[in-house]
Amino acid sequence: MKIKFEELKYELKQILLQNGLNEEQAEICSMTHAQASQDGVTSHGVNRIPRFIEYIRKGWINLKAEMELLNKFSVIETYDGHRGIGIVNAKKASERAIDLAKENGIGIVTLRNTTHWMRGGSYILDMVDQGFMGISWSNTESCMPPWGAKEQSIGNNPICMGIPRKNNPILLDMAESQFSWGKIQTTRMNKEQLPFPGGFNTIGEITKDPSEIEESRRIMPMGYWKGSGFAILLDLFSSILSNGNTTAMIDKINQGSGTGSSQVFIAFDPRYFITEMQMEKIIEETIYNIKNSESTHQGVEVRYPGEGQSNNRNVSDNEGIYVDDSIWKKIKIL
Amino acid sequence: MKIKFEELKYELKQILLQNGLNEEQAEICSMTHAQASQDGVTSHGVNRIPRFIEYIRKGWINLKAEMELLNKFSVIETYDGHRGIGIVNAKKASERAIDLAKENGIGIVTLRNTTHWMRGGSYILDMVDQGFMGISWSNTESCMPPWGAKEQSIGNNPICMGIPRKNNPILLDMAESQFSWGKIQTTRMNKEQLPFPGGFNTIGEITKDPSEIEESRRIMPMGYWKGSGFAILLDLFSSILSNGNTTAMIDKINQGSGTGSSQVFIAFDPRYFITEMQMEKIIEETIYNIKNSESTHQGVEVRYPGEGQSNNRNVSDNEGIYVDDSIWKKIKIL
Repeated sequence: MKIKFEELKYELKQILLQNGLNEEQAEICSMTHAQASQDGVTSHGVNRIPRFIEYIRKGWINLKAEMELLNKFSVIETYDGHRGIGIVNAKKASERAIDLAKENGIGIVTLRNTTHWMRGGSYILDMVDQGFMGISWSNTESCMPPWGAKEQSIGNNPICMGIPRKNNPILLDMAESQFSWGKIQTTRMNKEQLPFPGGFNTIGEITKDPSEIEESRRIMPMGYWKGSGFAILLDLFSSILSNGNTTAMIDKINQGSGTGSSQVFIAFDPRYFITEMQMEKIIEETIYNIKNSESTHQGVEVRYPGEGQSNNRNVSDNEGIYVDDSIWKKIKIL
Repeated sequence: MKIKFEELKYELKQILLQNGLNEEQAEICSMTHAQASQDGVTSHGVNRIPRFIEYIRKGWINLKAEMELLNKFSVIETYDGHRGIGIVNAKKASERAIDLAKENGIGIVTLRNTTHWMRGGSYILDMVDQGFMGISWSNTESCMPPWGAKEQSIGNNPICMGIPRKNNPILLDMAESQFSWGKIQTTRMNKEQLPFPGGFNTIGEITKDPSEIEESRRIMPMGYWKGSGFAILLDLFSSILSNGNTTAMIDKINQGSGTGSSQVFIAFDPRYFITEMQMEKIIEETIYNIKNSESTHQGVEVRYPGEGQSNNRNVSDNEGIYVDDSIWKKIKIL
């Protein structure tokens, strides 16, 4: 079905209120999930609501928790999320990073012991909407083998970066695995092959076959050894700078995806660094070059990072947001 | 041939002094190139000296240039490198980032209009040797097509991250292309295929054949669309934060590799964030998990980022540093 943004947000909010969230929490979460679906990131939008509520019911997400300031110096604040709602913690963390950046040109918030932030790009979009450049990343539980190993012991640790722009912002929202487990599952259910190799089979051969990867559990890091190394560094940076859990420690908590994770939010106020006119020149020239590169497939435009999500948002605004009927039924009875 | 570190550094320094570098410049550059070769990064170590001197002779690197402070606020300083020696500028920038981090927990230096920094990991190793965590990146001239395009219009923009450790540090030094042009050339000269797809042929098929990639010039970003997007964001962040050149602007300068590039250096003092004991626990547990994962190839150890370079350094210290005879002959007559 297709549904208008305000209606979707309203429906989600009622469901969240009925499941114990307070007014502020339900407002923030319904907005963030609805926006993710609006931008086409359905996996972490509406589709994720059932699992979110499951985690609340299991006591893995603490609705009573408040983020606590642990440490503050120069442009940095560090918080304990006390396993409260991941979206609410991440929203508040990115708001504090913006406030610190307003005063100092840069603001950094590190957040430990939080829960799954859902769509990582959400908090960077908050920053760019207010004119700030942003970088954020999170560690996760183990879901990928390090390069050269058979067993999962590294996270797919997403990193997000964004740059404000008059019209559509530039947004990178990238996990360290080449494909998500969700994409592998969907591809298998559609009886398709992945467009590029996404993992290994049980005898160690590279494969595009989603069922072989599900069998071996050996999903592939993006860029082979590169994504593996980058995931390890992102994990160590987020856990050290927040004095929080590493991927290995999250595995020991063993309460689903993202429970206990460590995150970093960095906001830059570009006005401290560059004139508005020069920044616009840099961005528009770069986008112009990308958009005007000769395409490998006739009729298919070369896109800049974030363009697809802006396009999806336009479609959603015109035609309504796509919501899977079976998932909607599931949500309505929660 | 094999040569001891001190001897190699001495020989390089004499050659650099004869080519117009002053005492301080020759000391810094001979040390940095010798260390790169010592750690096995020969492409940006001794092997790069002929091209460095070629750039000086062409006037593309200005030996008289001094880094100039343009802007200073909170934990940030921005500099103009005036196309001085890339290594010297990057060394000074990372030292300033360390000084700022000592005072504030974090220090950021942005550097515009510099020249090729050679081995990016060098400056992160300076930070970790002094107990700091570091992140740095640089943009470059166009050398890779963005995802979905035929023509080169994005850089392979290296990013480096490091974490100090009692024995061997953790170091990631990663460009955005899956393989470097140097690796593709060497593989072709050895009449070998790349171990994984590294680009496209002229009819747009993915290939492991180095000569096909050299023909099409269509090298592949690591992780396909992911490395492409990441390269674009790294370019925009470094050029905006330094008020410097983008990849597109570097192309217009058209003076070889890296001339006019924009760089960012971030140092964190972990003592502001975490106790020494907890930091050691985080790092050693993580490395233990990686090293103790079951390997895909019997007898081949799973490695953490930077382990290979530490191993190479040990071999170099015991047996001498490997230097290619033909390159050494070339250098000796410069």
